[in-house]
Amino acid sequence: MNAPAELTPTTDLAAYMKSVGARARAASTAMARAATAQKNSALNAIASAIRAAASDLLEANRRDIERATGAGLDAPLLDRLRLTAASIEKMAAGVEKIALLPDPVGEVSEVRPQPSGLRIGRMRVPLGVIGIIYESRPNVTVDAATLCLKSGNATILRGGSEAFESNRLLAQQVSHGLREAGLPGEAVQLIESTDRAAVGLLVAMPKFVDVIVPRGGRGLIERLANESRVPMIKHLDGNCHVYVDAAADLAQAVDVAVNAKTYRYGICGAMETLLVHADVAAVFLPQVAAALASHGVELRGCAATCALLPQARAATEEDWFTEYLGPVLAVRVVDSLDTAIAHIEFYGSHHTDSIVSRDHLAIERFLREVDSSSVMVNAPTCFADGYEYGLGAEIGISTDKLHARGPVGLEGLTSQKYVVFGAGQLRG
Amino acid sequence: MNAPAELTPTTDLAAYMKSVGARARAASTAMARAATAQKNSALNAIASAIRAAASDLLEANRRDIERATGAGLDAPLLDRLRLTAASIEKMAAGVEKIALLPDPVGEVSEVRPQPSGLRIGRMRVPLGVIGIIYESRPNVTVDAATLCLKSGNATILRGGSEAFESNRLLAQQVSHGLREAGLPGEAVQLIESTDRAAVGLLVAMPKFVDVIVPRGGRGLIERLANESRVPMIKHLDGNCHVYVDAAADLAQAVDVAVNAKTYRYGICGAMETLLVHADVAAVFLPQVAAALASHGVELRGCAATCALLPQARAATEEDWFTEYLGPVLAVRVVDSLDTAIAHIEFYGSHHTDSIVSRDHLAIERFLREVDSSSVMVNAPTCFADGYEYGLGAEIGISTDKLHARGPVGLEGLTSQKYVVFGAGQLRG
Repeated sequence: MNAPAELTPTTDLAAYMKSVGARARAASTAMARAATAQKNSALNAIASAIRAAASDLLEANRRDIERATGAGLDAPLLDRLRLTAASIEKMAAGVEKIALLPDPVGEVSEVRPQPSGLRIGRMRVPLGVIGIIYESRPNVTVDAATLCLKSGNATILRGGSEAFESNRLLAQQVSHGLREAGLPGEAVQLIESTDRAAVGLLVAMPKFVDVIVPRGGRGLIERLANESRVPMIKHLDGNCHVYVDAAADLAQAVDVAVNAKTYRYGICGAMETLLVHADVAAVFLPQVAAALASHGVELRGCAATCALLPQARAATEEDWFTEYLGPVLAVRVVDSLDTAIAHIEFYGSHHTDSIVSRDHLAIERFLREVDSSSVMVNAPTCFADGYEYGLGAEIGISTDKLHARGPVGLEGLTSQKYVVFGAGQLRG
Repeated sequence: MNAPAELTPTTDLAAYMKSVGARARAASTAMARAATAQKNSALNAIASAIRAAASDLLEANRRDIERATGAGLDAPLLDRLRLTAASIEKMAAGVEKIALLPDPVGEVSEVRPQPSGLRIGRMRVPLGVIGIIYESRPNVTVDAATLCLKSGNATILRGGSEAFESNRLLAQQVSHGLREAGLPGEAVQLIESTDRAAVGLLVAMPKFVDVIVPRGGRGLIERLANESRVPMIKHLDGNCHVYVDAAADLAQAVDVAVNAKTYRYGICGAMETLLVHADVAAVFLPQVAAALASHGVELRGCAATCALLPQARAATEEDWFTEYLGPVLAVRVVDSLDTAIAHIEFYGSHHTDSIVSRDHLAIERFLREVDSSSVMVNAPTCFADGYEYGLGAEIGISTDKLHARGPVGLEGLTSQKYVVFGAGQLRG
């Protein structure tokens, strides 16, 4: 979709991006030092500002929708773009909830005396400047900016061009709330250009940006991962597995598998492949198939599965790799725990995988050997979520190995520096 | 320096690197699952193999030195390249010490019940495959490989071409020890090519390599940071500061400053700029200058410093940015704690900075506001070191913000995945 003429930048884009970066870096220092009470008061002021701007927000959003409709955006994307009185209230209430979360910044831990007499520990500190690159949903503007705010970071937001007017007005409310609390409004900046080149410039400014968090489709994220000169906290596929062990409680396994698949088809924690131990396949598969049939889930199975379930289509090699995000499930009968683990390693995406079993040794091996950001026992994969994990809120789910893995909340937006307490000790 | 003909790869380099990567990835699975006792037995076998190979190692190293001398390598680099009976024994003893460190892999922490009834915590796991790129010192081959081994990772080593024969023989001892303990010898591979293009290929294989740890000069590291498609744990400058506050114990401040500068000039934790509060400058500077003069340290000062210390040369803007790594010190008189913190923020490298003070509020602010990987109180910056921090050993000191900051030991070579313990709970 092309941006309307008035949204096209008139100034030199590279110079503009550099100025955005420099302002963010400067604001990040004030944010890192801000007291918890001051950050919370900014958050509450932001919630009020969003509520007060509700009718303007609906109007700006109406213009975005109108432009996007004219440009032929399809219905699901229009849906994601749409703000309502209820969704605006939900955003404001969400910001107030972030104010209630404990502040991670300044936490000192693991202080231990060393042989030198120094006491050495770690202090949690903000990352600095976080760049968020996202697609249609305007609520990300507020959710991401306020999580970064609470964790003491400055933020540069780059939303989708189709949501530009909504995003701009939302970002203005955030800056307004920051200023009300005596914090720099530039601690949250929306890139005021819909030029695609701005994204390339944003991910190439390690001097001004410490981390990039991309939120969007796999295409966007893979392109950014190739281009970025700044470290990223990112999420790729969610090809999640439930493995029903020989020692599973089969009634529980049916419930877990059905919930993992059907709680919501579109979430990254939805089960996409069900692995079943051969010893229980003949009993378990007809039961789970009947339950899944009542939800209209289509089954694609290995040969052994198809022999037990005439309604299942034969799965292709491609199916084992696929994140359906819909009412389709791949099913494979495996001869052992080893085969299940090897299948997850080879075809999976290291997101979330679960074992259903009563066998302690099988559970121990699954927990240890499955290399995924979340490994579950007797629980459906759809629980992979920052709220369910007690993080209060999440900026996303990381499938990276360095830094944060799995749901990323406030703590994932910070790092730890060493703090060293001495009384004049000397070395050597 | 050109590599001798016999070290030049004869096969397709890209295909060779891919095969190295694939072997490392395969070995990393076995390493992640290896029991602590098995890893320790590999470490002890490696120490024995190194001792048994001592005379062959000295001979291989002699050939490296001969070739490097012929190629005109300068004396300090030849020194770093040289192995002796004592340095070989030290390497072997170091490996035995790593065997004694606690195994970080498998540690489960922070398991908390959630409202859903699930208990959710984190398990420490290896990063996977670690690529180490280093220059002349052959001992890095053993130190880095065995730290990665203990933390359950597979390693790909790329040493300097001048140390090729020494490195190759050392890597063979490591693989031998791994196999003795029933672990895959390919868990540690040295790139058997001295072609510079191999480095470019190594940092462009995110499928096979999870992290790159570069150890070398700033030039190497900056080039790699620009090229790498794999996340890096890296170290740039160590432009470290000691700030002597108005409320410092001045005798202690002299000791701390002198130790910070003179413990060893060449380490990254050496103080490079001394900041002194104006209230104590007239008393403190002559004292510290006299002590530093006895070590032959040259002073470069701001105008106020030069007025108090006739022996100081005027510092240029460049001096404040400089990591001398030698007996030179920049000195600036500051009018406040704020100016000191602002100086460190602007000119520093976020490595290690220290305050000397008895004023609790000044200390609190310095600890909170100085954004460096280590922030110290009444201690010399030269303490920035994994052994002093109780890590047992270090792979390097990170000046990055994501993942590990400061000295990186075994824990920094691991990450944490979520573990979720349920009893059939369902969502929604």
